[in-house]
Amino acid sequence: MTKQQLIKQIKLKKSFLCIGLDVDLEKIPKHLLQFDDPIFEFNKQIIDATHHAAAAYKPNLAFYESLGSKGWDSLEKTVNYIRKVTSDIFIIADAKRGDIGNTSALYARTFFDTYDFDGVTLAPYMGYDTVSPFLDFKDKWSIILALTSNKSATDFQYINDANGKPLFENVLKTAQTWGTNDQIMFVVGATKAEALQDIRKIAPDNFLLVPGVGAQGGSLKEVAEHGMNNHCGLLVNSSRGIIYASTNEDFATVAKNKAVELQQEMEIYLRKFGLIE
Amino acid sequence: MTKQQLIKQIKLKKSFLCIGLDVDLEKIPKHLLQFDDPIFEFNKQIIDATHHAAAAYKPNLAFYESLGSKGWDSLEKTVNYIRKVTSDIFIIADAKRGDIGNTSALYARTFFDTYDFDGVTLAPYMGYDTVSPFLDFKDKWSIILALTSNKSATDFQYINDANGKPLFENVLKTAQTWGTNDQIMFVVGATKAEALQDIRKIAPDNFLLVPGVGAQGGSLKEVAEHGMNNHCGLLVNSSRGIIYASTNEDFATVAKNKAVELQQEMEIYLRKFGLIE
Repeated sequence: MTKQQLIKQIKLKKSFLCIGLDVDLEKIPKHLLQFDDPIFEFNKQIIDATHHAAAAYKPNLAFYESLGSKGWDSLEKTVNYIRKVTSDIFIIADAKRGDIGNTSALYARTFFDTYDFDGVTLAPYMGYDTVSPFLDFKDKWSIILALTSNKSATDFQYINDANGKPLFENVLKTAQTWGTNDQIMFVVGATKAEALQDIRKIAPDNFLLVPGVGAQGGSLKEVAEHGMNNHCGLLVNSSRGIIYASTNEDFATVAKNKAVELQQEMEIYLRKFGLIE
Repeated sequence: MTKQQLIKQIKLKKSFLCIGLDVDLEKIPKHLLQFDDPIFEFNKQIIDATHHAAAAYKPNLAFYESLGSKGWDSLEKTVNYIRKVTSDIFIIADAKRGDIGNTSALYARTFFDTYDFDGVTLAPYMGYDTVSPFLDFKDKWSIILALTSNKSATDFQYINDANGKPLFENVLKTAQTWGTNDQIMFVVGATKAEALQDIRKIAPDNFLLVPGVGAQGGSLKEVAEHGMNNHCGLLVNSSRGIIYASTNEDFATVAKNKAVELQQEMEIYLRKFGLIE
């Protein structure tokens, strides 16, 4: 998906919501366990209920991999189902891969060819070699970890260099030299909403994928105010707060209500910033 | 596997060789493609031919994932086959995962419970939260990227902090506070053999997993001289140089010869350092 198509999708849905499909057999409603593929059945119902309010879906691969080859089947069926229901939605493989050369090339092939993802989250520790093979795919995105929302993000991401610049700023700066802002997004945790202003100075034009709103405690209002740019430039993720809002038979309806609630708040900010009328 | 068991294995085999199973359908001998599962057939023959000369195997997960659920089946069969042939060998999931909290816990469950790996390679960017769930598993290992052998390792790993210490040194120091040297290994690229002396000052007791010998250009002699400690403390990986040494029907025999060649060189260093008689 191109940047223009992503922006069009956001304006059409009046939403920059990304729904995280972190699907765990132990957390889904019990009545789904009778299905052949409970994970896919859960996703299918969530997707049917929420796709009008979402600009993106983000399956977290750990949850699928933990089930072995069955989990990969569920993932493939999920991606194909999203494409069937709504062809223009942005689909992110939350994989946080970080390898080099031929290994990285294989990951790129896996996520962009074997599966039809639009973007993949990548860890920057090994530098350009990790990202390079992903940049060879047209209209596909590398989504690079910059500042994460977890407690121990401070272990390394905040280490200042000799000029007093923290590591995450070096990642933001260096990674922009690797590709255009039609190819490169950054992951920036929402629990650091005040840091978004500084990040926007360093990466004014890149899309930011912002996890951590909802269950992890970030404020959507602050994220929008500090992080939005003139083409929106934000995908804000919520996972548990939507998909596990109810664990009863009404889970899809409750998920829909939660997603629409966030979409409606996002609509206010999109209007306020003049991105929709 | 405990550290004592690993050292015992190294002394028994007179080898600290780790064989990387980076298995690509496009690179394996053509006559194997007639098998139901050519990847597993290739691995099976490689394992049969080489396990007497190796202390560890390291499947690189990207190669298996790129084949979807079939690849995960091949991986599972490979791990089970290694355990069947030789119960005491160390098996590493070269996954370079780096996620947090519940996601990381799922990865730990995948690699240590669903599959029976002894260790997993992990990226340090998100800090302690990435490694913590892996440390809960007894006799299992977190193998943390410190200094990698790729060209763009310089992008971030060599950024000096305010005290002039590069990022990889901060990773080596901080990660040692997370767990004992019975749980934590570090990945250190062999193309930086001269750096191994400095690394041994910072991490004297941890095992180091050293890729990059052979195809990537590192020297085994330098690695042994600069990196060995009084319990060996090294696992040196070779992948392509062994498994693709021949792409004809004799591939397993040629792989065996290449593995034995490295093992015999390793035996010299183990004897020189007084680790075997």
